[in-house]
Amino acid sequence: MFSAAQLIRERGVSGTSLRDVVAHAEAPWGSLQHYFPGGKEQLVHEALEWAGNFAARRVEVYLSELDPPSPSGLFAAMVNQWRTQFRSEGFAAGCPLVAATADVAATSESVRTAVAVAFAQWHRPVAAALRQLGVSQDRAASLATLMISSLEGAVVLARAQQDVAPLDVVVRELAPVLDGAITTQSDA
Amino acid sequence: MFSAAQLIRERGVSGTSLRDVVAHAEAPWGSLQHYFPGGKEQLVHEALEWAGNFAARRVEVYLSELDPPSPSGLFAAMVNQWRTQFRSEGFAAGCPLVAATADVAATSESVRTAVAVAFAQWHRPVAAALRQLGVSQDRAASLATLMISSLEGAVVLARAQQDVAPLDVVVRELAPVLDGAITTQSDA
Repeated sequence: MFSAAQLIRERGVSGTSLRDVVAHAEAPWGSLQHYFPGGKEQLVHEALEWAGNFAARRVEVYLSELDPPSPSGLFAAMVNQWRTQFRSEGFAAGCPLVAATADVAATSESVRTAVAVAFAQWHRPVAAALRQLGVSQDRAASLATLMISSLEGAVVLARAQQDVAPLDVVVRELAPVLDGAITTQSDA
Repeated sequence: MFSAAQLIRERGVSGTSLRDVVAHAEAPWGSLQHYFPGGKEQLVHEALEWAGNFAARRVEVYLSELDPPSPSGLFAAMVNQWRTQFRSEGFAAGCPLVAATADVAATSESVRTAVAVAFAQWHRPVAAALRQLGVSQDRAASLATLMISSLEGAVVLARAQQDVAPLDVVVRELAPVLDGAITTQSDA
């Protein structure tokens, strides 16, 4: 699953074949057919579900590590994961959810739905974290959408420009908006 | 060029073949070979350049039409073009710059460079418009990056969810940030 997600991050769904995944995973061809009888469609689905869960779990980890906890600190931690990856591994791999949307959302309703579910899986803990940090329920949902949108767009810009500067910009520009949305005492 | 850009918007670069472009453009195969002797690479390059120029020209049109002119009004106009397209044509087509980044930035340095150039072509008039609307030079460059990032991410979310709501959210949440950045009298 990790191999499939990694290849989709670099080449998109159209550019990733089952044979590529087998080669990347150094797995025997038969094992892929055994575990993914549904073929590429099933593999892509499970890779997207894996990615959504991974992003969601990371949000919970970031929230638990923030000191002091704040909405801007949470966003900075989310963005910082990308900065660290780009700095250590280069700009080859982007977000698999963006990749799958870009090349197959228009042609595969089932993949599109899987992407939507993965984005929702990720959005939920971000919004929950913002509420825990003192943001009202309505605003938390909106700001989680803004955070995910800005992060995803900045990741695309960073990859195109091979420069982490867009990541720094969205963190800096959104910090006052995010922290300014706190209306109640944080219980984080 | 329009046909190539349209197909890339729906299927990405990997999912778009020269034959698809010929069929979409209802052009004879020979004419494509005549006009694009460099093949798919050349076609993709010119489609990205076309897209960057198109986005840049639209920014100038929006700026001239704003009444009253404001940074938030400019951003709303940029986002509104997507909302109108999604409402009238459905969610099949996304941004060709995002599509090209997602599936070929990692494998084609020349396409990656073409995407970076197209983003820069688009960023320049956005930043210039913000300066004209009274935003300082440094801040204008940052906010133009934030606008493009949020818009691109929200377009991806909207396509995945088949819902324009993320577009509305980024316009609403960024309006105070954008208009709050005005430091001098607007000369728009």
